[in-house]
Amino acid sequence: MANFGFARLAVVNPYDVAFREARSAVGAAPLLQTAVEFSSVAEAVADCRLVVGTTSVGHRELQHPIRRLEYGARLIRSTLSKANAALLFGSEKFGLSNDDLSHCHWLMRIPTAGQDLSMNLGQAVALCLYELVRDPKAATARPEKIRAATAGETEQIAERLLAALRKSGYVNPTTASSTEEKIRRLVLRLNIGARDATVLLGMLRQILWKLDG
Amino acid sequence: MANFGFARLAVVNPYDVAFREARSAVGAAPLLQTAVEFSSVAEAVADCRLVVGTTSVGHRELQHPIRRLEYGARLIRSTLSKANAALLFGSEKFGLSNDDLSHCHWLMRIPTAGQDLSMNLGQAVALCLYELVRDPKAATARPEKIRAATAGETEQIAERLLAALRKSGYVNPTTASSTEEKIRRLVLRLNIGARDATVLLGMLRQILWKLDG
Repeated sequence: MANFGFARLAVVNPYDVAFREARSAVGAAPLLQTAVEFSSVAEAVADCRLVVGTTSVGHRELQHPIRRLEYGARLIRSTLSKANAALLFGSEKFGLSNDDLSHCHWLMRIPTAGQDLSMNLGQAVALCLYELVRDPKAATARPEKIRAATAGETEQIAERLLAALRKSGYVNPTTASSTEEKIRRLVLRLNIGARDATVLLGMLRQILWKLDG
Repeated sequence: MANFGFARLAVVNPYDVAFREARSAVGAAPLLQTAVEFSSVAEAVADCRLVVGTTSVGHRELQHPIRRLEYGARLIRSTLSKANAALLFGSEKFGLSNDDLSHCHWLMRIPTAGQDLSMNLGQAVALCLYELVRDPKAATARPEKIRAATAGETEQIAERLLAALRKSGYVNPTTASSTEEKIRRLVLRLNIGARDATVLLGMLRQILWKLDG
């Protein structure tokens, strides 16, 4: 919850030992300290205009509309901009009871590959909250590019590599000019970054110095 | 991993006790049984054309391009369609070492609200794999609608409700016609589903029977 910016945790009849133990979770202390305990789901969701239950795919007998996480999260987001909404999770072992579910406007399920698998409660919460605050634009935004080396730096690298190869006997004098072109193209294809160019030039300088020795 | 359809788990120098204990996880037995152990990251990723490390936002000193999960997952997906790719996770406690990171083409981070928070390894894996197989179309696809009651059924409900209210003395004879219109509009606004219409008609029939008694 803290990782995705959610602050209002309500717990209904928590199993006291586990709940107090959880208070030590790294970075989440403020959230757990302000968590409110209720003795019924009805009280916990009383100020919410939308109550969404979470369920695994298996529960087909449920008499509620079931929405996939991606779509359901959009609906919840649009409610959250104007009113409180509750996302209801059941216990690790049994999930939400039929009584819990009867307080929900609709249900949300995490799309999974299989139907017989179980999902850890912490993982289910993380996935739902991640999707709730997920920024669709982030999927297409170009990330910061690594600054490329200049053509001059790349050329200098190619030159030093060539010099080292000539001194090592790699370059056959009769095919020298085509070899040089091949090596220059290879160096260009490496797309060397500005920072790496400096390092590579230093390596080649050292090798040349040794070859000259 | 099993929940999101991933089958190839490679573990590098696992802490034996914890790894064997994990074999009992519900529904994940086949995946853990076929997990392969390696003694180095280099061996584990040898057949992959793309190796992506995972990191928390904090690690700003890293000399790798860092991509947000939403964008990075797209890049990994496009590699996976033609070649093997590895997603590298560090230990719960220390994350990936600098040596581990030196095997990665780039790094991926899960976008979170704070920078000082820790995330559970299982949650981090679940979020990355969820995003990897996430279907962007699912966010906009309309879910299956609940079949609405027919106008005839809705009208029957309104009629029975009106009859019950008349018998109960709720309807003032002098304003009866405007009251009837109000009630009919209210019943329409309820958007009653086909299945619920039958239940409501049964309830009203029973109340009318009692009122007549």
